[in-house]
Amino acid sequence: MRILGIDPGTGILGFGVVDVDARKPGVYQMVDAGVVRTPPHTPHDERLEDIYDSLVEIIRSTSPDVLSIEKLFFTRNITTAMTVAEARGVAILAARQHGLPIFEYTPPQIKQTLTGYGKADKKQVQEMVRVQLGLREVPKPDDCADALAAAITHAAMTRLTTS
Amino acid sequence: MRILGIDPGTGILGFGVVDVDARKPGVYQMVDAGVVRTPPHTPHDERLEDIYDSLVEIIRSTSPDVLSIEKLFFTRNITTAMTVAEARGVAILAARQHGLPIFEYTPPQIKQTLTGYGKADKKQVQEMVRVQLGLREVPKPDDCADALAAAITHAAMTRLTTS
Repeated sequence: MRILGIDPGTGILGFGVVDVDARKPGVYQMVDAGVVRTPPHTPHDERLEDIYDSLVEIIRSTSPDVLSIEKLFFTRNITTAMTVAEARGVAILAARQHGLPIFEYTPPQIKQTLTGYGKADKKQVQEMVRVQLGLREVPKPDDCADALAAAITHAAMTRLTTS
Repeated sequence: MRILGIDPGTGILGFGVVDVDARKPGVYQMVDAGVVRTPPHTPHDERLEDIYDSLVEIIRSTSPDVLSIEKLFFTRNITTAMTVAEARGVAILAARQHGLPIFEYTPPQIKQTLTGYGKADKKQVQEMVRVQLGLREVPKPDDCADALAAAITHAAMTRLTTS
């Protein structure tokens, strides 16, 4: 199974593609990872189109089986939350149009799955992403590591529910 | 100028298309109006795709020049707000992909423009939509009248800034 993980955002959106072999559950391989970045002060509608076009390109070039996307959780800044939700809508649309089933996980679920502790800090989660994918260094920027964490979470959840 | 107004939502999304003649400012004509409705319990990603497909169809069949969309404002229910923002993202994407400039107005701006009072109630706004468009009855459901109100707001704003 190939999983596309997404950490939604507008200025910067992280993505990570992870393979998991059904015969080797718990062994994950990173296929691709990166960010979709739009310059500051880019009009919001242009950003949404950039995100959509980039994700369609990523889906076409990596052919993932499912989308695992971080669910918004915070309420500190309602305006930011709404803007990120708009980007999330566009990402979900791109996945749906390409036949990908969509799974959503909250940050505490992702933290719990990666580290065993729902309130783990960012650094601990990132270190587990590095270990789980057998990488030398933590993928940068943070948005990229967070997207990979979302992908790993879905892999681990699927393993739990099918075994 | 032909304006597509949208009142965003996921279960029900209102749209209204209004023509304004540059030689007759203040005279508005309704071209089309309605709602995109998805049954209760429809998966969220399916809803977003339905909204996108319906809006693309509406844009192609009515050829509007601009999109005027209601800006989210409420914070009462953050989960609902996020879901509506996702639908909003998809609507903005559809408009952007068809070359429509996008204008956003908050509910108080729309109320102020239609009735002269930013805290007017729903009924007053709807009655002004009816009067401004020369209709016998208030368009139903509410989401449809709200979308027409967004379209009329942009027409009135453009008139103010160009005269």
